[in-house]
Amino acid sequence: MREKTTRDHIVEAADRLFYRQGYEHTSFSDIADVVQISRGNFYYHFKSKDEILHAVIDLRLANTREMLERWENEGKEPADRIRSFIHILVGNRGDIKRYGCPVGTLCAELAKLGHPSRPEANKLFTLFRTWLRRQFTLLGREADADALAMHLLARSQGVATLASAFHDEKFIRQEVKEMRDWLKACAENAGPIT
Amino acid sequence: MREKTTRDHIVEAADRLFYRQGYEHTSFSDIADVVQISRGNFYYHFKSKDEILHAVIDLRLANTREMLERWENEGKEPADRIRSFIHILVGNRGDIKRYGCPVGTLCAELAKLGHPSRPEANKLFTLFRTWLRRQFTLLGREADADALAMHLLARSQGVATLASAFHDEKFIRQEVKEMRDWLKACAENAGPIT
Repeated sequence: MREKTTRDHIVEAADRLFYRQGYEHTSFSDIADVVQISRGNFYYHFKSKDEILHAVIDLRLANTREMLERWENEGKEPADRIRSFIHILVGNRGDIKRYGCPVGTLCAELAKLGHPSRPEANKLFTLFRTWLRRQFTLLGREADADALAMHLLARSQGVATLASAFHDEKFIRQEVKEMRDWLKACAENAGPIT
Repeated sequence: MREKTTRDHIVEAADRLFYRQGYEHTSFSDIADVVQISRGNFYYHFKSKDEILHAVIDLRLANTREMLERWENEGKEPADRIRSFIHILVGNRGDIKRYGCPVGTLCAELAKLGHPSRPEANKLFTLFRTWLRRQFTLLGREADADALAMHLLARSQGVATLASAFHDEKFIRQEVKEMRDWLKACAENAGPIT
């Protein structure tokens, strides 16, 4: 594992700030303050906030790919892997209650800004969608694997949005339980998704 | 119906702009440009963007109450009324594909900004939650009416987020069909929500 560069530190600080306070609301100097570097050094690495956003999305894509690979390797059965996805809601509940889902809120913000990096950010959703679709196919639901993937993605997005609005951890746990039950029914080919 | 005042025009323009381009990204002059009034006249009505936000949330709360009352009066059975809620996703699909849900995206943005108007904005969700809970109670699901209300709210939020990311109308229609089926199963007391 290589040592982190100043550039890495900038991108990681920006990643956290964009998540916690939004892209538009985060300034160059907010990021520089966290990394504690001079304005000159900062500009040496990034000329604009758009450039930083691009690097943040690249970092998130790489981290997401790594996480999905880990779930793939750790989960023996496709249902185990899909449960890994469902359980992010519990694992990250602290952040989700405060700031919502990092993917959903970034994509929503960039949509409103009409930002050119929007298609790149949406690739984060596509990574999850494609991965979930493959798991549902392996689960024996080839015919509706994509619909099931989108359905589960939507449910987890909705839970994140409402958990953030109501600061409600019990709600997260209740919905996670229901998603697990729904997955079980999917695995048993218990008919159409409901 | 009273004639619209300059203040009304400002608040309505701000409402649209906050929805379409986000609160943080919308400036005083963006709003003044739409309403076509002088800076002096503008400041006569509102001293800060926070004040406008407050008025926008009040407007949205009033509009939502009115809509819920209309659904209440128009829908003979509670299931009809809940279907009115589900169908906003179809009725507003054009805007939702572009900008997501106005409630969900505003609450998410204010959460990140740590904005003092956040509790007010969250009341928009509470209006829907309370209204849906009452409908589910009338449907004979008193014991889990609140969980059902939150579940349906979450599903519609998730659909809005993904429909916006993927610009996918077919997905909206598919999910709306599934929510209708789910509602039917709820009405038949077909067991726990899945």
